[in-house]
Amino acid sequence: MSLIVALDPPRGVDPFKWSVNLIESIGNKPAGVKVGIPLTVRVGVEGLKDILSVSPHKLRIADMKLADIGYVMSLITEAIAETGVNAVIAHAFVGREGALENLKRTCDELGVKLVVLGLMSHPGASEIMRPVFRNLLGVIKDLKPWGSVLPATMPEAIREGREFLGKDVKILSPGVGAQGASPGDALCAGADYEIVGRLITRAEDPSLAVEEVIKAQRERVEACLGS
Amino acid sequence: MSLIVALDPPRGVDPFKWSVNLIESIGNKPAGVKVGIPLTVRVGVEGLKDILSVSPHKLRIADMKLADIGYVMSLITEAIAETGVNAVIAHAFVGREGALENLKRTCDELGVKLVVLGLMSHPGASEIMRPVFRNLLGVIKDLKPWGSVLPATMPEAIREGREFLGKDVKILSPGVGAQGASPGDALCAGADYEIVGRLITRAEDPSLAVEEVIKAQRERVEACLGS
Repeated sequence: MSLIVALDPPRGVDPFKWSVNLIESIGNKPAGVKVGIPLTVRVGVEGLKDILSVSPHKLRIADMKLADIGYVMSLITEAIAETGVNAVIAHAFVGREGALENLKRTCDELGVKLVVLGLMSHPGASEIMRPVFRNLLGVIKDLKPWGSVLPATMPEAIREGREFLGKDVKILSPGVGAQGASPGDALCAGADYEIVGRLITRAEDPSLAVEEVIKAQRERVEACLGS
Repeated sequence: MSLIVALDPPRGVDPFKWSVNLIESIGNKPAGVKVGIPLTVRVGVEGLKDILSVSPHKLRIADMKLADIGYVMSLITEAIAETGVNAVIAHAFVGREGALENLKRTCDELGVKLVVLGLMSHPGASEIMRPVFRNLLGVIKDLKPWGSVLPATMPEAIREGREFLGKDVKILSPGVGAQGASPGDALCAGADYEIVGRLITRAEDPSLAVEEVIKAQRERVEACLGS
């Protein structure tokens, strides 16, 4: 149960129907689903609530990439929490005082898990984020959120994050599949969950794709643990 | 015409009605309005479209604080552009390649103005953002977006931004009123627009408050130009 499916509707489909169909077809095999801002703004909180009502998943993550003052991030999280979302992603780079500290209090009050993003892996991330990665990890370490986000395509960053953050902060890793990492790579480097999007959602049979990804994760983890 | 009104509905009101009433009461005296993520996720793109249909303003800015890969920021901007929004705010922090460069292309195609945030002024901004401020300005300078966001509460950052970015990038400054800056402070430091929220939207007579802010801006600018 280390798989989270990213529900990102492609252009040109009805985002509501697409999401409901996809959740129903993947069933309860993944540990969680992740919804993003494009879907959320298209369907609004009411639509998102209806979509998530068919989700049997323990983790229902809103990948809002929050990056604002605490008051605004809290307002967004309050709105989103009404939909059945139980985890929200925010950026470490906005810092703690007047930002992530306030959001953490709001999350605690609402029973929403806070997940803080420490690094991204697109080329532009090397301009600002990568050089201050240790400081971003420092923000996360001091904040002690439920989880963090580190890219599957940079296993060395996951290893560094795991060592620096200890065992108490979950690591969620996107970038598996279309962005280049293979299922299990991030788990072997120390991640708790892998976030997989197009490899599953664009497959002809998403349910079968879920099974294949879970099998590939198991095989890869067994191999790296054994090595 | 250097005033942009931030439409942030308080907790406990109907965000749709509140926004429509406010736009109607402030009329066409401000240069623009700015809507945020809390309103957008509550009403969705359809609701936002109806709200903005009553706006006579030249600038209709979506303060999405975008901070994602280019593909996702583009998807969000495509959705938002359907509402009548004609400018979108993104973070410089995510860098250019695979992020802001792609978003800029999308904005150009859609006829949406790109506004890139260079610095915030809450205490947590001193942890990561302030130490890399010059690099964030560098991202903006190379990207050449329509505008940038720098805080009214830090006039020295506006002066530095204006000097570094030149005259071709507009500077929009939030933080006037509730956050501590006075109307005209940011304009005197080199900003093109001041973004004012609660000072107007929580006033008993928002229309009168708009007139008072514009008058205060004029007086302050005349005084600083004369000094």
